[in-house]
Amino acid sequence: MGNMYSFAIGVGTKNRNNDWLEVFYPAPVLHPEQALADILTAILGDAEELEPNPEQLAALQISLQDKGYGEQAAAVAQLKTAERPLVAVLLKKDSAPTSVPQGYLKLHLLSHRLVKPHGTDLSGIFAVLKNVAWTNVGAIDIEELPQRLLEARMAGQTISVDCVDKFPKMVDYIVPTGLRIADTSRVRLGAYVGEGSTVMHEGFINFNAGTEGPNMIEGRVSAGVYCGAGSDIGGGASIMGTLSGGGTVIISMGEKCLLGANAGLGIPLGDRCTVEAGLYITAGTIVTMLDDQKQPTSKVKARDLAGKNDLLFRRNSVTGTVECLTNKTAVELNAELHASN
Amino acid sequence: MGNMYSFAIGVGTKNRNNDWLEVFYPAPVLHPEQALADILTAILGDAEELEPNPEQLAALQISLQDKGYGEQAAAVAQLKTAERPLVAVLLKKDSAPTSVPQGYLKLHLLSHRLVKPHGTDLSGIFAVLKNVAWTNVGAIDIEELPQRLLEARMAGQTISVDCVDKFPKMVDYIVPTGLRIADTSRVRLGAYVGEGSTVMHEGFINFNAGTEGPNMIEGRVSAGVYCGAGSDIGGGASIMGTLSGGGTVIISMGEKCLLGANAGLGIPLGDRCTVEAGLYITAGTIVTMLDDQKQPTSKVKARDLAGKNDLLFRRNSVTGTVECLTNKTAVELNAELHASN
Amino acid sequence: MGNMYSFAIGVGTKNRNNDWLEVFYPAPVLHPEQALADILTAILGDAEELEPNPEQLAALQISLQDKGYGEQAAAVAQLKTAERPLVAVLLKKDSAPTSVPQGYLKLHLLSHRLVKPHGTDLSGIFAVLKNVAWTNVGAIDIEELPQRLLEARMAGQTISVDCVDKFPKMVDYIVPTGLRIADTSRVRLGAYVGEGSTVMHEGFINFNAGTEGPNMIEGRVSAGVYCGAGSDIGGGASIMGTLSGGGTVIISMGEKCLLGANAGLGIPLGDRCTVEAGLYITAGTIVTMLDDQKQPTSKVKARDLAGKNDLLFRRNSVTGTVECLTNKTAVELNAELHASN
Repeated sequence: MGNMYSFAIGVGTKNRNNDWLEVFYPAPVLHPEQALADILTAILGDAEELEPNPEQLAALQISLQDKGYGEQAAAVAQLKTAERPLVAVLLKKDSAPTSVPQGYLKLHLLSHRLVKPHGTDLSGIFAVLKNVAWTNVGAIDIEELPQRLLEARMAGQTISVDCVDKFPKMVDYIVPTGLRIADTSRVRLGAYVGEGSTVMHEGFINFNAGTEGPNMIEGRVSAGVYCGAGSDIGGGASIMGTLSGGGTVIISMGEKCLLGANAGLGIPLGDRCTVEAGLYITAGTIVTMLDDQKQPTSKVKARDLAGKNDLLFRRNSVTGTVECLTNKTAVELNAELHASN
Repeated sequence: MGNMYSFAIGVGTKNRNNDWLEVFYPAPVLHPEQALADILTAILGDAEELEPNPEQLAALQISLQDKGYGEQAAAVAQLKTAERPLVAVLLKKDSAPTSVPQGYLKLHLLSHRLVKPHGTDLSGIFAVLKNVAWTNVGAIDIEELPQRLLEARMAGQTISVDCVDKFPKMVDYIVPTGLRIADTSRVRLGAYVGEGSTVMHEGFINFNAGTEGPNMIEGRVSAGVYCGAGSDIGGGASIMGTLSGGGTVIISMGEKCLLGANAGLGIPLGDRCTVEAGLYITAGTIVTMLDDQKQPTSKVKARDLAGKNDLLFRRNSVTGTVECLTNKTAVELNAELHASN
Repeated sequence: MGNMYSFAIGVGTKNRNNDWLEVFYPAPVLHPEQALADILTAILGDAEELEPNPEQLAALQISLQDKGYGEQAAAVAQLKTAERPLVAVLLKKDSAPTSVPQGYLKLHLLSHRLVKPHGTDLSGIFAVLKNVAWTNVGAIDIEELPQRLLEARMAGQTISVDCVDKFPKMVDYIVPTGLRIADTSRVRLGAYVGEGSTVMHEGFINFNAGTEGPNMIEGRVSAGVYCGAGSDIGGGASIMGTLSGGGTVIISMGEKCLLGANAGLGIPLGDRCTVEAGLYITAGTIVTMLDDQKQPTSKVKARDLAGKNDLLFRRNSVTGTVECLTNKTAVELNAELHASN
């Protein structure tokens, strides 16, 4: 590992004012070796961001090939042919992104599984990214959309606008190995989706959030949330994020947890915990603890149970009391659910 | 303001029987000035709906230009070049739509923010609109779709059908300023989406419903529902609409309300009200009122609390009782949530 | 009816290794007449699956025409012109699918309403189907996607990946008559969607599941679940499937049931049952039975109420108790809801 934090060359889209709307990096690198960083700096210079000219790309390709970076050389060779603008980003350290190309690089690092959620500095990324119309003919500046829609109509063509947002869907940039995503509009670029994850139609994963894998995700993994291996999020289940109700506490689930369908979670869970279908546990929920004989022993706020293992939360269907049992039997996840569905 | 209710010229799609499937109006006008209305009537005649011929369009362009309606003249100039059929609608008053072009004009008025939900007569619009297959190659009559799918397959092409419905998605017609919609398939044409609204992936806004803005919408705003400024709808939250369970009472939320994640609402709320995550309040829910000391004072049906301010609804997690406190602290909405997410 | 189980000729997509990714069958046949089966076998031979050559197709077309199968002859005539590979499947009996073409035929039989859910053998279909990237330029092998994305970018083109899954969306293959599906990504090929069904934006129907029609579906119909005529699934409502929490019991709803918004169901229901909005009934829920005077008479597990008629489930909003009343008044479904919404 060298001294450089991250490097990537990408191809992207600009609006008519020559501002970047988005960038696609086919092969981002985290912590490039010093030898690679030296090549990059020698040819591209000291700037953290530049639009490389054909001469630089040609020199870069040759130098990478000479020094044994054949894969990177091949990528540069292919990018040289692009009809759209190119950009190179060379981040010296993990600092807050200050431009669209830098923001997109950070999001790529997450979705390429090079860093985990909370593993790279995303401070201020909302202010940096532009609100873009994502369409069947690519990214369009929101200001330019009305004229584009009209022109297409006049020509008897169709522009279908799928998303109006600062964050595009992940899979138009990278489809990590070993996963299925039934409705791709529900996983944002910047999600970390671990090997063996299935995101069903009702599942959702925000940026800077994700799954270790394998996981069955049929509910909403909000910004900042992380789900450990073997944990399942039931259909329509809600996990509070740091942006929307979870406050400053980062919500996570350990391994082999089960959040039931239409349930909700506002505290971090340890391993092998279960929340019954339809029950919403917030930090302030008063929980009645039960012993092995299912007799009440004490009352605690849910936030005081944060991170503990082997808990089962339910609402007593006779008394309406939210109760917590110790969940000795580990949640046995249906192997078929992961392989399939 | 003149005597005419609304005017627009649009370009649209017809099926093989020459029936209108849909119409796109780039610049609909509500209550045109009398001088503008006079020009329109002089050139287009007295009919409420017609397919203008090239001579009429040329005359209209010149006359609009002459009388100082440069923007309208420019729109007509552009529409003259259309390869698809044109239609002009001149509604004398706000009457129930009787054709596809009239129905689409009404829906445009809402989404262009020219009228608010319940602000224009939509009686019988379901019977007027046609069920259409909305695809990556435009609107296709549902009867013609099988043959089109097969022909595309034979030619090695792809027709992707995104929606089979009487209502298209709003953003293929108009993207009002100052909003983000993460999954555009969830906002129908005819939604009124106020400046500063963010509709997240799980959000939904039906036609004749909407938000004043700013609002963070992560749940379902059903037909007829209106959300006041600064109110937030949590992930997966449900608001009953007049078409589906809400009956004849129009549900609305005042300003600065918060409907928690996976919560539900079947009564109108005043300002600064909160419904706890996971709690569904229907009109018939018996609510136990609490005083400042959190002691029960009375029981009322939720419908009797309709429209009152500063209420906080929760389900007591020990007793299972649905309770209502007076919510003196106004809901402070996270500014970041509106600017971002 | 002859001895053959099913027959279809289709056009599909292969990857670069010549493996099938998916197959589109314009006119699958269940239980072909013996005379038709004899023609097929005479020309195509005894194999259950083959890629017919032009000579076979020409002979088939002539023979079908001669023997009075004009519609099938026309379909073959059109398929002859395909630029993509063709496949013929002739299933002798209803056996587990052993290839992609066979798996797709089974899914077509369901969505063409030729068999009902659980009406055809789908054993092992997850292992048979391939995980595919479904895009605006067709089906792409998941292994080939990164290079395709990069190539498109280089050429200034857009590949939008809508789904990464073993199951495509139904409507790209067949749109059965008499339905609306507001967000088509939420109905998988292999769903049985009965005449008169409306699937709203929050609705979902998995493969081997479905609706008899008419039905208003605004919640999730999981794999294996079947909804009888006139039953409505409220917004965000969850029905447990055999793949995800429902275990081995097949969940179904009889006729004229109502599952409220954000409610949940883990037991089969008979006719005219209602589950209140926001209430999740699992098999283990202890339900307090009420008599005509609304007085408690007994406590039972919800699983013991499976399949019974005229039940109304609610959670008492004062005591938190899950109660069951006899729902004498049949649920009167709003006719407008079916005709429209």
